[in-house]
Amino acid sequence: MTEVCMNFSAPVAALTRKIGLALGETPVDLLLKNARLVNVLSGDIHDADIAVSDGIIIGFGEYEARRVIDCQGRHVCPGLIDGHIHIESTLLTPWEFARAAAPRGTCAVVWDPHEIANVLGRQGIEHMLDLTRDCPLSFYIMASSCVPATSMETSGAELTAEDVEQLVLTNLDRVLGLAELMNYPGVLAKDPSVLAKIAACSCSVVDGHAPLVSGKALNAYILAGPSSDHECTDAGEALEKLRKGMHLFMREGSDEKNLKDLISVCNNFNSQNISMVCDDRDPVDLTTSGHMDHNVRMAVSLGMDPVRAIQMASINTARHFRMKGRGAVAPGYRADMVILDDLEGFTVWKSILNGRDVADISFGPSGKIRSENTVKLSVSGGKLSASNFEIVKVKDEVRCIGVVTGQIVTKSMVVTPRFESGRAYGDPTKDLAKLAVVERHGKNGNIALGFIHGLGLARGALAGTVAHDSHNLIVAGVNDSDMALAGNVLAEAGGGYCVVADGKVLALVDLPFAGLMSLKPYEEVVVSCRKLIEGFQSVAINRDIYTHPFMAMSFSSLAVIPELRLTDKGLVDVGSFCQVDLWV
Amino acid sequence: MTEVCMNFSAPVAALTRKIGLALGETPVDLLLKNARLVNVLSGDIHDADIAVSDGIIIGFGEYEARRVIDCQGRHVCPGLIDGHIHIESTLLTPWEFARAAAPRGTCAVVWDPHEIANVLGRQGIEHMLDLTRDCPLSFYIMASSCVPATSMETSGAELTAEDVEQLVLTNLDRVLGLAELMNYPGVLAKDPSVLAKIAACSCSVVDGHAPLVSGKALNAYILAGPSSDHECTDAGEALEKLRKGMHLFMREGSDEKNLKDLISVCNNFNSQNISMVCDDRDPVDLTTSGHMDHNVRMAVSLGMDPVRAIQMASINTARHFRMKGRGAVAPGYRADMVILDDLEGFTVWKSILNGRDVADISFGPSGKIRSENTVKLSVSGGKLSASNFEIVKVKDEVRCIGVVTGQIVTKSMVVTPRFESGRAYGDPTKDLAKLAVVERHGKNGNIALGFIHGLGLARGALAGTVAHDSHNLIVAGVNDSDMALAGNVLAEAGGGYCVVADGKVLALVDLPFAGLMSLKPYEEVVVSCRKLIEGFQSVAINRDIYTHPFMAMSFSSLAVIPELRLTDKGLVDVGSFCQVDLWV
Repeated sequence: MTEVCMNFSAPVAALTRKIGLALGETPVDLLLKNARLVNVLSGDIHDADIAVSDGIIIGFGEYEARRVIDCQGRHVCPGLIDGHIHIESTLLTPWEFARAAAPRGTCAVVWDPHEIANVLGRQGIEHMLDLTRDCPLSFYIMASSCVPATSMETSGAELTAEDVEQLVLTNLDRVLGLAELMNYPGVLAKDPSVLAKIAACSCSVVDGHAPLVSGKALNAYILAGPSSDHECTDAGEALEKLRKGMHLFMREGSDEKNLKDLISVCNNFNSQNISMVCDDRDPVDLTTSGHMDHNVRMAVSLGMDPVRAIQMASINTARHFRMKGRGAVAPGYRADMVILDDLEGFTVWKSILNGRDVADISFGPSGKIRSENTVKLSVSGGKLSASNFEIVKVKDEVRCIGVVTGQIVTKSMVVTPRFESGRAYGDPTKDLAKLAVVERHGKNGNIALGFIHGLGLARGALAGTVAHDSHNLIVAGVNDSDMALAGNVLAEAGGGYCVVADGKVLALVDLPFAGLMSLKPYEEVVVSCRKLIEGFQSVAINRDIYTHPFMAMSFSSLAVIPELRLTDKGLVDVGSFCQVDLWV
Repeated sequence: MTEVCMNFSAPVAALTRKIGLALGETPVDLLLKNARLVNVLSGDIHDADIAVSDGIIIGFGEYEARRVIDCQGRHVCPGLIDGHIHIESTLLTPWEFARAAAPRGTCAVVWDPHEIANVLGRQGIEHMLDLTRDCPLSFYIMASSCVPATSMETSGAELTAEDVEQLVLTNLDRVLGLAELMNYPGVLAKDPSVLAKIAACSCSVVDGHAPLVSGKALNAYILAGPSSDHECTDAGEALEKLRKGMHLFMREGSDEKNLKDLISVCNNFNSQNISMVCDDRDPVDLTTSGHMDHNVRMAVSLGMDPVRAIQMASINTARHFRMKGRGAVAPGYRADMVILDDLEGFTVWKSILNGRDVADISFGPSGKIRSENTVKLSVSGGKLSASNFEIVKVKDEVRCIGVVTGQIVTKSMVVTPRFESGRAYGDPTKDLAKLAVVERHGKNGNIALGFIHGLGLARGALAGTVAHDSHNLIVAGVNDSDMALAGNVLAEAGGGYCVVADGKVLALVDLPFAGLMSLKPYEEVVVSCRKLIEGFQSVAINRDIYTHPFMAMSFSSLAVIPELRLTDKGLVDVGSFCQVDLWV
């Protein structure tokens, strides 16, 4: 055997083993008998006995197996893949997310860890890669493209083109490319630092993020590299993006619900270019409505054929990201399968991950967790006081962020706040609250003040250290001293969400991991979150209106989505991508 | 600027230029105005003005352009891609093929050059890569997997796993993977030399070739690596392969016509996994019926939606092979477009290749052609004589290759030849001819003799140096001395096809380039080929029956497709993959 031939000996031995297994020469690990396979490749549903060994599908047919699961005619489909998620939004560690999502059929996610990255930088992403390395639910990573999202805010860390390149090159199997390129104004302005990140991922996938961008600007954005978009809010926008070659991610998340408005764009000739994603999912929704199972169920309830809906949550996504051997049930694919009690309702009987029954899997971190306090306020005495939130009257009207229910976009409004003794305050009679963003990475002590409409707050204050994307401390309130207390409570907890009123803490979810994620089991996090919502309801104008007030607050600082946002440096008009004054 | 940043300066400059063009800051090269774009990505047909610069699509919209083509409402679709072709079968050089196919809408082909490889080896493939490097019709190459196709024949060269690896690694942009893995018995037998070739292409595409393989054998074959198949002859076979994850190539060639039998397998959920290919196309068909345009036309005439038919001849194929920026008309894709006078009939008004009007393009080799005589007979005196073709009677019945019209498969028949003076001969009353394969690579002087049924030869002999896959000299005749003459004529011409009768040469197509391809303009080759057919008709049993007698003869030595074949080493029963005796 020549030296070069020797190089092939290991892969040849692996192929030899596979061929022997497929030919039935030795028993396989597992056989799913009497399945009705929802085949996302041939686009039909057919009877199959499915053989599994070494974590992969060996083939269809009668095989001798060490373990047999009789599906008794149940439908079997591939494990579901979420093509765009920020795991941090679940407030859970990845392994707790996996423990919650795997029994619902999720087998893989494509995670843009830009919340972690904004707080802890490249080291934070690498730590996440380490901690999820052996998880049977696969965590693919997209290197965050916009950390910080804009120069009009203070983040805990920056990611450069070199960081992106290193992340991709040193994790070829798991880092699939560049995450949502939110800085579309930077692309259109030919900002070399933005373009360098695209260049660093020229051999992998660049995900887009271009809300309402169209015409020549969209041509230019696409030509620069991004090949997907998950920000469409109506079918016309989605159709233009599909026509121009973008893979369409129809998003249905906890606070961004687009599926119903976009589904009409699917036809019999384009659905391979469409996937479903959730983007953000809060822990209560995740554990009650579900994850991708929810999105499949919803698409089917809106009239989509179940085969197509499942394609959009499996093979279409796997192909967009060029995942090898993922997204289908066929020889050579990883054995990720969902056995269903009910196809239309997507009721899971049993999940199989990497050839193993999910019921038999323990989910946990793949290494030692490094967690330290990341909430560092640079205010005098280290504590906030009511005076930090004082707004002196300058004119009669202010610019105000208008929450749009069920959407991530906001409206830019002009309102008259309540004035008292030459100071401006929120006004519950107008559903108007004061909003503050306090730099919390120990860098400059910035505090920016503004107003938010539509949060539904009657009294007290809410606060969070989850505040997209720089994750400074964000506080909304109708009472300056409650705002100070809310901020101080979170600083002490190392991050989280809280509700305070009349000088008392009504509810607290502590998120000590980067100020973003809990270290507790998901069941406990869900209980805390329910208490948080109850706490909010006790201070709300109308306890029935708002499902996700904290997510709405967290997104009100995201300066890359129209129309108006507040960062620690002040108000940002996203349309003109400029800072604007509070007073009109 | 840091050293690493410097690495991005060239790609950043390129992106900057593209963005400026898309934003309309400078005029574009070309604008196709008033087009009705057949959009294979969004699966719809819509109005568009299509801007082109630097050979790529810049975007849709109103752009200032140096040249404007007014499509006047004509349909525009992406250039067509043939996912599996042996250019050698056209008998043309690649550039003459391009000159004929480009005006019909072809923009790219995936070429398995295994005819060249069987004669000239890796150097032959590398020479083809060199000669086609600058051709605006793209010649992608698949590294031939089975050279020689079997050990039961003598080829001019061998390709090892190391050759395959070198071809792929040194031509990453153009060598897309491993070509049709015909040696499926070798895969199933876990032959390390076959598996090593698959291992050499583990990061690229491995094309399959598995006629009638099903069940566990198909599971094993797929698990080994091949991800496509173009050998299906009925819809049931195609459905099993689709269900098991193979990309289905529906073949419609000059001698292998499967489209009509397979088209029913397409549904609204699987067509992205199906492409159309031609595999083999003779020069007369190419220049009269067409190339991929013919296949699209035929699919539409069989009831397929034109958008789907065009997808199957463009984007589906580009994606299977992971071609970057090919197969669609959208920003960033290469500007390969076909402007149609008639969508259903696929009548081409104008072809655009790489942003240029095909009418303005001169097609020619990209380097100096190296062509030498490759027909080297190792018989005494260097010339064949009638005695070389003598078959002494042993028993009453012989195994005989049965031609199946319009199919590449053959039947294994048992027949009684004509006996005279203890010698066996062909018998025109039974449509039976003698068949000989003469080793022509100067290696061993093998001559194997047998019979062929269904060729339609009444008198004289046919010969060819195109004889799949080893391309030895193949001769069919009812007269031993005419068989000798036919062989000697081709040896003198350096290869080709000829018809002789009664000691006279009736027609000759000389193919001096490896004994496979003409060096003449395609128009002259077509004239020669028509004369060849006329020559055949003048010696045929019925001049109307056979369209492609030479292709049928050429394929009768292809020992990897059922059922019976003749190589220079003797008869091969493909089902058992063994040599068998002539006499039954």
